[in-house]
Amino acid sequence: MNEFELIDKLTRDLPQNDAVVLGPGDDCAILDLGAPAHWTLFKTDAVVEGIHFLPDTPPEAVGRKALARCLSDIAAMGGEPLSALVTLALPRNFDPARVERVYSGMKTLAAQYEVAISGGETTTNPDRLLLSIALVGRVARDQAVRRAGAKPGDGIFVTGELGGSILGRHLTFEPRLREAQWLATHFHPHAMMDISDGLAGDLPHILRAGNVGAELLSEAIPVSRAAKLQARAPSAHHDDAEGTDPCGETNHAPPSKPKRKTALEAALTDGEDFELLFTLPSRKAVPLVDAWKKRFPETRLSCIGRVTASTGLQLRTRKTLAPLTAHGYVHFG
Amino acid sequence: MNEFELIDKLTRDLPQNDAVVLGPGDDCAILDLGAPAHWTLFKTDAVVEGIHFLPDTPPEAVGRKALARCLSDIAAMGGEPLSALVTLALPRNFDPARVERVYSGMKTLAAQYEVAISGGETTTNPDRLLLSIALVGRVARDQAVRRAGAKPGDGIFVTGELGGSILGRHLTFEPRLREAQWLATHFHPHAMMDISDGLAGDLPHILRAGNVGAELLSEAIPVSRAAKLQARAPSAHHDDAEGTDPCGETNHAPPSKPKRKTALEAALTDGEDFELLFTLPSRKAVPLVDAWKKRFPETRLSCIGRVTASTGLQLRTRKTLAPLTAHGYVHFG
Repeated sequence: MNEFELIDKLTRDLPQNDAVVLGPGDDCAILDLGAPAHWTLFKTDAVVEGIHFLPDTPPEAVGRKALARCLSDIAAMGGEPLSALVTLALPRNFDPARVERVYSGMKTLAAQYEVAISGGETTTNPDRLLLSIALVGRVARDQAVRRAGAKPGDGIFVTGELGGSILGRHLTFEPRLREAQWLATHFHPHAMMDISDGLAGDLPHILRAGNVGAELLSEAIPVSRAAKLQARAPSAHHDDAEGTDPCGETNHAPPSKPKRKTALEAALTDGEDFELLFTLPSRKAVPLVDAWKKRFPETRLSCIGRVTASTGLQLRTRKTLAPLTAHGYVHFG
Repeated sequence: MNEFELIDKLTRDLPQNDAVVLGPGDDCAILDLGAPAHWTLFKTDAVVEGIHFLPDTPPEAVGRKALARCLSDIAAMGGEPLSALVTLALPRNFDPARVERVYSGMKTLAAQYEVAISGGETTTNPDRLLLSIALVGRVARDQAVRRAGAKPGDGIFVTGELGGSILGRHLTFEPRLREAQWLATHFHPHAMMDISDGLAGDLPHILRAGNVGAELLSEAIPVSRAAKLQARAPSAHHDDAEGTDPCGETNHAPPSKPKRKTALEAALTDGEDFELLFTLPSRKAVPLVDAWKKRFPETRLSCIGRVTASTGLQLRTRKTLAPLTAHGYVHFG
């Protein structure tokens, strides 16, 4: 049984009740707790030493990253974060100063986005630091943007630039909360998620959820400077392996490849971009791009392709149109 | 800096906002998410292999315990659990069948208490299995029973029997949800919590929160059969060390003692009883005990002492009245 089969098995026949609007399979669960104007968003996310950060990663950056990842999931549904609980699983003989600095990084980011830290737990994980965040947020009733909903003809958009996050951005990214709330309010995307496992790995979640396909334009993919630098740099193995989210968010490393990734391959497959990926009717594309430039002049927005009625994901280059796999391999026919 | 000083430092100056009714320091955080009739309860709790369960603990029992601990915290505030997210941090080369069985134990308990499992995450913890539950519940607005609120003259009550949980009950206990909801509705306890760190360790949380003291009657403490068996059995070291909850719930082992615990000492200090500890006006004591016997004939309810205006915790035996420390040592003056 592989990882995906296991998750499929685990999330089958889960107990449900009337409070649940949306269970596993999206960026957050959606609950109806009886508030007249809002639904509740509910999410957890963990970072583990040696997997998502290293023993010498600055502790403030570890705390910041743990919370920021969770905030990115609230953003992905167009929501607003409200309250976090922090689970700190501490190794034996932990350094209290390190733990304080982890908290400090979290507190600073929480204050910035007006998120309360309402408690949590400290327990023991003898061999390494593990930090898990549980987050409650809200979204206007019936306004949550889900992974499902993409329609043939939709334009596919992505914020920021992709790839090479391991060089630093995975610790410093801004969760796209303001952008996502603005998008949800003014442009009602049909489908949205955050990119945590690479565009080529994550877009298929939107496609499967909508029973549609997509054609991406290779020249439109916003390749980050880090991805380009990495493609030029001497080869180094980046251990950015991650776990897999039974909610459907997969966060694990692409299989190790003997050859270096090109910058485009990095943009398609590197993990931890934490950019927004969304679709909306192509007639809204121009008004969106115009309004975006005024509202978020410092953040790139790219239309990278379109949703197709025929399923499957294809990449169009200048010369070819070829299937793109989740791991970013282009099979030239 | 010791553990308690660290937690004190971490939970100082946490970011707050208008959604938070009650932050760190109780069994759950309380949020006001705008529902006219309810507040939201929010809690996380983790169990770790080698700490809260062993490699050969039946996986179903591991999953059950993880969820049951969290349910016990919702019970402790008189609340109703609604939706859980599951964080599974899996060791390398985990056995998928083991993980399925962990989930199976959780699902069974969730179904029993009509709790939805609404998603979660699977990640990697290379050296051992770690399972964290995030739980959202609800309680009637203004009806949450907190740790604060005990008044001088209140009777102190405890459900069930205490001590020796390590012999098996820590895996099989029933979270006292029905009992707590009934108590909150019909008898409005002044203060309530669940006992996870031993009566002598946990009662002081209620006393400090209310700025009161207590006198316990040693003969009234309900000592479990397991605690008595343990006191008679050949000495064995029980590694029931746990982490500490910055919400104020401490879950760590009493310091190792060269001498065997008596059955009473075990009832006062053993961890993981998960029974309800509450106070209410002494005039309600007799009606409560009568009503309890009819409603919960199979569950013992004991009045174990009374709240005093003078702070400090004392234990009255047939012959003496002496201070009781958090670790259950009675200092005979």
